Amino acid sequence: MPSVRTPDPNPGWLSEFALDEARSRVPILYVEAVPVRVDSLGRIEHVGLLLRGSASGELTRSLVSGRVFHGESIREALLRNLEKDLGPAAFPRLPVSTIPVAVAEYFPLPGVTPLHDPRQHAVALVYVVPVTGDCAPRQDALELTWLTPAEALAQEVIDDLEGGRGSLLRQALAHAGALEA
Amino acid sequence: MPSVRTPDPNPGWLSEFALDEARSRVPILYVEAVPVRVDSLGRIEHVGLLLRGSASGELTRSLVSGRVFHGESIREALLRNLEKDLGPAAFPRLPVSTIPVAVAEYFPLPGVTPLHDPRQHAVALVYVVPVTGDCAPRQDALELTWLTPAEALAQEVIDDLEGGRGSLLRQALAHAGALEA
Amino acid sequence: MPSVRTPDPNPGWLSEFALDEARSRVPILYVEAVPVRVDSLGRIEHVGLLLRGSASGELTRSLVSGRVFHGESIREALLRNLEKDLGPAAFPRLPVSTIPVAVAEYFPLPGVTPLHDPRQHAVALVYVVPVTGDCAPRQDALELTWLTPAEALAQEVIDDLEGGRGSLLRQALAHAGALEA
Amino acid sequence: MPSVRTPDPNPGWLSEFALDEARSRVPILYVEAVPVRVDSLGRIEHVGLLLRGSASGELTRSLVSGRVFHGESIREALLRNLEKDLGPAAFPRLPVSTIPVAVAEYFPLPGVTPLHDPRQHAVALVYVVPVTGDCAPRQDALELTWLTPAEALAQEVIDDLEGGRGSLLRQALAHAGALEA
Repeated sequence: MPSVRTPDPNPGWLSEFALDEARSRVPILYVEAVPVRVDSLGRIEHVGLLLRGSASGELTRSLVSGRVFHGESIREALLRNLEKDLGPAAFPRLPVSTIPVAVAEYFPLPGVTPLHDPRQHAVALVYVVPVTGDCAPRQDALELTWLTPAEALAQEVIDDLEGGRGSLLRQALAHAGALEA
Repeated sequence: MPSVRTPDPNPGWLSEFALDEARSRVPILYVEAVPVRVDSLGRIEHVGLLLRGSASGELTRSLVSGRVFHGESIREALLRNLEKDLGPAAFPRLPVSTIPVAVAEYFPLPGVTPLHDPRQHAVALVYVVPVTGDCAPRQDALELTWLTPAEALAQEVIDDLEGGRGSLLRQALAHAGALEA
Repeated sequence: MPSVRTPDPNPGWLSEFALDEARSRVPILYVEAVPVRVDSLGRIEHVGLLLRGSASGELTRSLVSGRVFHGESIREALLRNLEKDLGPAAFPRLPVSTIPVAVAEYFPLPGVTPLHDPRQHAVALVYVVPVTGDCAPRQDALELTWLTPAEALAQEVIDDLEGGRGSLLRQALAHAGALEA
Repeated sequence: MPSVRTPDPNPGWLSEFALDEARSRVPILYVEAVPVRVDSLGRIEHVGLLLRGSASGELTRSLVSGRVFHGESIREALLRNLEKDLGPAAFPRLPVSTIPVAVAEYFPLPGVTPLHDPRQHAVALVYVVPVTGDCAPRQDALELTWLTPAEALAQEVIDDLEGGRGSLLRQALAHAGALEA
C-alpha cells in the first residue's frame, strides 16, 4: 500500500523495496512548497492547501511535497513536485535562491519535533512559491483550497495539516511577513 | 518628555528638535533584538522580554530597540542598544550576518501593518541575539522576563507587546524554528 | 545640481534643502535591486546592470537604487524605483519576503566598508528581482546591459560598479547560488 | 577503502556496504560548516580551513563536513561533525536557526554544478559557525589554518578547496558580508 503521509506515486528509479531499505538507513531528502498567489507588490493574497483523503478515510490538508530523486537537483525536484500536485498549468515561479525558508525535520517517533512521519526520517527544504496559472490538483489530492493568510492560520486549519505541518506553514508565512498579531 | 514607545534616552548627536524634523521627512532606521538563551545545540530555551511602564501608567512588554545613529554601523547600533537595554554584562553574541530575520515597518497611522508607531515612520532591522551573561535592564525598563518560546507565544503575552510587536516576535521565533503547532 | 551617485530625480515630498538637512542627521534608507532574467527553474540567466554618465563624464555601472520615501512601504519603494530605472513595462516580480539578501551600509568617509557614498550615510536593503518584460532605462541611465553571472562577476565589471557596489553584486549573486568557483 | 573526499570515519549505524547501497539510490544528506573567529561586533576575523592529505598524496583544503545519520537532527549532526573535525574543545556556537546560508548540491558527474563528489549525489546544508575555544583537528586532517577573509578568498586558496567548495566558501562569506570588492 502506498503511504498516505508523503506519497511518492512515481517513485521513479527506485522500487518500493529498495526505497524502504534506504529509508531505514539514511534520512530521506524532500522538498515542500507552499503555493501562494501574490499581488503586484509581492504580498501573499492567498495560500493554496491540498485536501487529501487518507487510508483511514480521514481528510487532511497538506503542502506540495515530494522526494528529491537520485541525480535530480533541488530545483528540478521542486518543479516536478509542483507539477505533480498542482498540474502542468500552474506556472510556478521558482525562487531565485535554493536557500529554503525553513528546514523541516520529520522523525518516525512522534514528539521529537512538532513534525512527524511514521514511515521515515525525512528532511524537507521548504519554499514559498508564487503560482500564476490554473491549478488542477492531481494524484490523490481531492482539492486545492485557496485561503487568505489569516484563514490559513486559523487553529482548525493548522490542526488539519498532516504530520504537524501547521507549524511549518506558520514558519513559511512568518518569513513572508504574512503573520498577523 | 521623551517618547515612551521607542525611547531614545541618549539621542546622541541630535537634539530632540532636529530629530523631530528628520522624523517628519524620512523613515527613521532602527534595530530591534530578541534576546534569547540557547542550549549547546543552539536551540532557544528562553526569550527575554522587557517590561516597561508607559506614560499612562500601563505596563507593556517590549523588545530591545533603538535608533541607528548617523555615522554608526548596524552592528554598532545593535551592540549599543543591547547594552542600553540589558546592561553592560549581558555579553550578547552578535550575528555573523547583518541580514535580519525580519524587516519591521512602523507607520504613524494604525492599521497599515500590524505594527504601529504614533511618533514616526520607522523601519527596523530585527535580529535574534543569544546573550550569555547577566542582564540588568536599565533605562526605563522595569524588568526583564525570561519566558520559554511557548510562554512567549501565549496570546496574552503577544497582546502585551507594544506597537504590534507580537507579530514580530512570532516572526523571529518562526525563523529560529521555535514556533510550536 | 542633482547628485550623480544615488540620484533621487523625483525627491517627492521633500525639497533638496530639507533632504540635505535630514541627511546630516540620520542614516537615509534606500532599496537597491539587482534585476535578473531567470529560466523556468529559477536560475539566473542574465543580470541587468545600468550604465550611467557621471557629472565628471565618466561612465559607471549601477544597480536599481532609490530612497524610501516618508510614509512609503519597502515594497512600494522597491516597485517605484524599479519602474523609475527600468521603465513601466519591466514587469518585476517582487519578492514574497521583504527580508533582503544583503544590507548595504554606505558611509561618507571612504574605507569604512567597501561601500561608499560621499553625500550621506545610507543603508540600503538589497533584493534580487526577476523581471519578465521589456526594460527601457529612464532617467539618467544611458543603457541597461544584460550579462551572464560569469560576465557580471568579471573584475573589470565589478570595478565599474559605482560606490563599491561590486561587492554587493557578488553578495547578491552568491545568495542566488550564481557564484562560480 | 574509505573515500577521501567526504570521509565518514565513524559511519555509525551503517556498514560501508549498506551505505554504498543507499548512495546509489537516494541523495545523501550532509552538513558543512565554515568555522570562524568573530570580534565583539560579530564580524568575521578569521576563517578556519582544514588541510587534508588525499589518497593520492595531494594536499587539499576542506570545510567541516559530514553525513547526517538516520535518526539524528541537523543540529546534532552539526555539533558531532564540528567535534569530529575540530576536537572537543572548540566550543562552537551553533546557529539559532537551522536555515542554512547555502545549499550545496554535489553530483557524481563533474560539471553539473561547480561542486562535485565522485562517490555520490550529496546535498549539504551549509552553516557559518563561530568557535571560541581551542581547535585540534582530528581524524585525517593534518592542520587547521586560520586565514583572514581576504586571504581565504585568494584564488589559490579557493582552488585548493576540494570538490569545488571554493564557490561554497565564497557564498558563505558573502552571506556574512565578508566579501571584499
